[in-house]
Amino acid sequence: MLIVQKYGGTSVGNIDRIKNVARRAVRSRKQGNRVVVVVSAMSGETDKLIGLAKQVSDSPEEREMDMLMSSGERISSALTALAIEALGVKSMSLTGRQAGISTDAAHTKARITGIAGDRILEALNQGYIPVIAGFQGMGPGSDVTTLGRGGSDTSAVAIAAAIRADLCEIYTDVDGVYTTDPNMVPKARKLDRISYDEMLEMASLGAKVLQTRSVEFAKNYNVPVLVLSSFNDNPGTLVTKEDEQMEKVVVAGIAYDKNQSKITVVNVPDRPGIAAEMFRGLAKANINVDMIVQNISSDGRFADISFTVPKTDSDKATRTTEKIAGKLGAKGVDRRDDIAKVSIVGVGMRSHSGVASKMFDTLAAHGINILMISTSEIKVSCVIENMYTELAVRVLHDAFELEKPMGQEAPPAKSKTRSGRKKA
Amino acid sequence: MLIVQKYGGTSVGNIDRIKNVARRAVRSRKQGNRVVVVVSAMSGETDKLIGLAKQVSDSPEEREMDMLMSSGERISSALTALAIEALGVKSMSLTGRQAGISTDAAHTKARITGIAGDRILEALNQGYIPVIAGFQGMGPGSDVTTLGRGGSDTSAVAIAAAIRADLCEIYTDVDGVYTTDPNMVPKARKLDRISYDEMLEMASLGAKVLQTRSVEFAKNYNVPVLVLSSFNDNPGTLVTKEDEQMEKVVVAGIAYDKNQSKITVVNVPDRPGIAAEMFRGLAKANINVDMIVQNISSDGRFADISFTVPKTDSDKATRTTEKIAGKLGAKGVDRRDDIAKVSIVGVGMRSHSGVASKMFDTLAAHGINILMISTSEIKVSCVIENMYTELAVRVLHDAFELEKPMGQEAPPAKSKTRSGRKKA
Repeated sequence: MLIVQKYGGTSVGNIDRIKNVARRAVRSRKQGNRVVVVVSAMSGETDKLIGLAKQVSDSPEEREMDMLMSSGERISSALTALAIEALGVKSMSLTGRQAGISTDAAHTKARITGIAGDRILEALNQGYIPVIAGFQGMGPGSDVTTLGRGGSDTSAVAIAAAIRADLCEIYTDVDGVYTTDPNMVPKARKLDRISYDEMLEMASLGAKVLQTRSVEFAKNYNVPVLVLSSFNDNPGTLVTKEDEQMEKVVVAGIAYDKNQSKITVVNVPDRPGIAAEMFRGLAKANINVDMIVQNISSDGRFADISFTVPKTDSDKATRTTEKIAGKLGAKGVDRRDDIAKVSIVGVGMRSHSGVASKMFDTLAAHGINILMISTSEIKVSCVIENMYTELAVRVLHDAFELEKPMGQEAPPAKSKTRSGRKKA
Repeated sequence: MLIVQKYGGTSVGNIDRIKNVARRAVRSRKQGNRVVVVVSAMSGETDKLIGLAKQVSDSPEEREMDMLMSSGERISSALTALAIEALGVKSMSLTGRQAGISTDAAHTKARITGIAGDRILEALNQGYIPVIAGFQGMGPGSDVTTLGRGGSDTSAVAIAAAIRADLCEIYTDVDGVYTTDPNMVPKARKLDRISYDEMLEMASLGAKVLQTRSVEFAKNYNVPVLVLSSFNDNPGTLVTKEDEQMEKVVVAGIAYDKNQSKITVVNVPDRPGIAAEMFRGLAKANINVDMIVQNISSDGRFADISFTVPKTDSDKATRTTEKIAGKLGAKGVDRRDDIAKVSIVGVGMRSHSGVASKMFDTLAAHGINILMISTSEIKVSCVIENMYTELAVRVLHDAFELEKPMGQEAPPAKSKTRSGRKKA
């Protein structure tokens, strides 16, 4: 197999761990695979560099930030290549540029525009294990660009797509994707497989295993991604395209996010365009709005508009909203920071009814009040009071019987012997 | 004027110093100059990276060492560019590659093969202060190379040559070139000017202000180099081509080197080729031999061959020499580590006689025994016992009246009012 292995910051966090990464790469190679390694910066390194820049300048130029931050991955890639060489296998570090990764000019958050995989393939053919500096590429004018936080995942998946790898392994400090946070629910179960869409919902909802953009990339180019730990030999979770088996599972996992605030504009005189005006203003202020709910009063004259924003944007969002609300003639603006979002995710929802109502019933049965509801094809999210987060996740995990294995022994086999799951 | 300013590791050693460098560059720009900055890595950074590599591998690949070490200058160049921007002047960091510096493939000690200065000039024309990562270039196959220790000086001088700068300023932690080490001789005087050849002798003899290769480069391309401190506003020393004024000065300075050992092969049966055989063997063992002296015994049958090597190579050199001496039928090999080399340097020696004998007389008058003598057109070196180094330097400094100024007020003016110096 042709395998891309990506190791995150904690996996290359010190010299011993870098040596461990080298052993893993060499082991896979000795098992007969052709191996390409992609590394993040040693953990803490990128923050250290950002810290230095902030001491020099209050608003550092993004081009310079990219020059600065991209150094972290150069260092870890060279050290990893040296560690592989020390095990007697030829290895060669490659920068994003040398690996042929082209991006647009959006410094600090560049998008990959193309990958010329020839130097990687050439190195492979010459018997090297190429070790590519993740998170970076080359923009127009041969300037160094970075892909934004978590960009190394995207580098790895994009490289896997470009060289038509059979598998992209993402090594991190957890050994896969769980039905929910195992720290919160001890009987949370590791999933053998999850679909790209489910992973997207899980990741963007706060199950921080894989960077959202990398999952989108994997989905678009149909790259199978195996999430696993660099600290043990557990089998991991395969993120792959949806199949029949997955569709039989109503709920794959439960995600939560405690880092949001809820803002409500009360009694806005209802007329066409009020929502548009409100959110245009927030977008201008660069505030990322997540859930949005609008209700019309029974007499149809007033609307309440609620939305959630990252807690870090909460002050700014409240100020901006108050200004707009004033113009719109609203009665006032409410803000709550003591909330959390809990979501159930599963591609099976498309073909199963009653999933949402089972969620609401379960929360109600435990006295948990729902402040906002938002649904998509494959997820249902509820905003609740923050203090009930753990309880909500636990009772939902029980209600949807997520602790029960689904009988998928080996990822590629389409097993028929699975515990049939009842429609919710 | 078009000026290249190079700042060494201590000058960019921390954030405050980087801000200081930014102020200097901006000040020069505001004085009407077009300024290009070249920086070393923050002091300690390169050693830190080498330390990491040695933890990973006993014999790290040089290609990877270059990838690793070149990160240090990327970081300092980006931080310096940010600091300049923070002062309201446009700035842009450029890697060796982006600055157009091509080198050969000799990783960790690459030689510059060419500089395409267009991107630097383009940045200047757009109003930027380009900040170039020193010490690095791009080798064949677009691999990163480094120029060896002190390579940033060479980068700066080479860039100055390529863009036809009027001046290359080398900022360091001393404020110029002194007649000798001011720590040893308090009345040592800072030279206003020194010729390339004198500087080469002074630098290679242990007055560690400017990297030898950079002086060779400056000489070959006739780049005026001003050595000065980044910590004060003292005028510095101009390293420039020889002129009439300089030739009138017999001795420009006194250098010393305490880091050598002397090895003597005693009573080698004399026949043609013995020296060749000896030094071929040492060269093969990669030992850098400095001074060589050969004497023939009065009956012409035996020769004594003495030479000096860096103290760090002393063990290896002795072992190698013993093997060769055995083959040659020599009586034995003596080694002394308690020696030092003291040299007087000056282009004026070419046209002045009696300089060497004055040196020998002075040493003899103070009871300092001379163990070896070696002369070139513009220097005389004596190996003496280490314990007499300070004394020798001091009495020679007095004897050649080096504390007396030469009346060179402003570097470019050819002053006529100078204290005539007597022939030695």
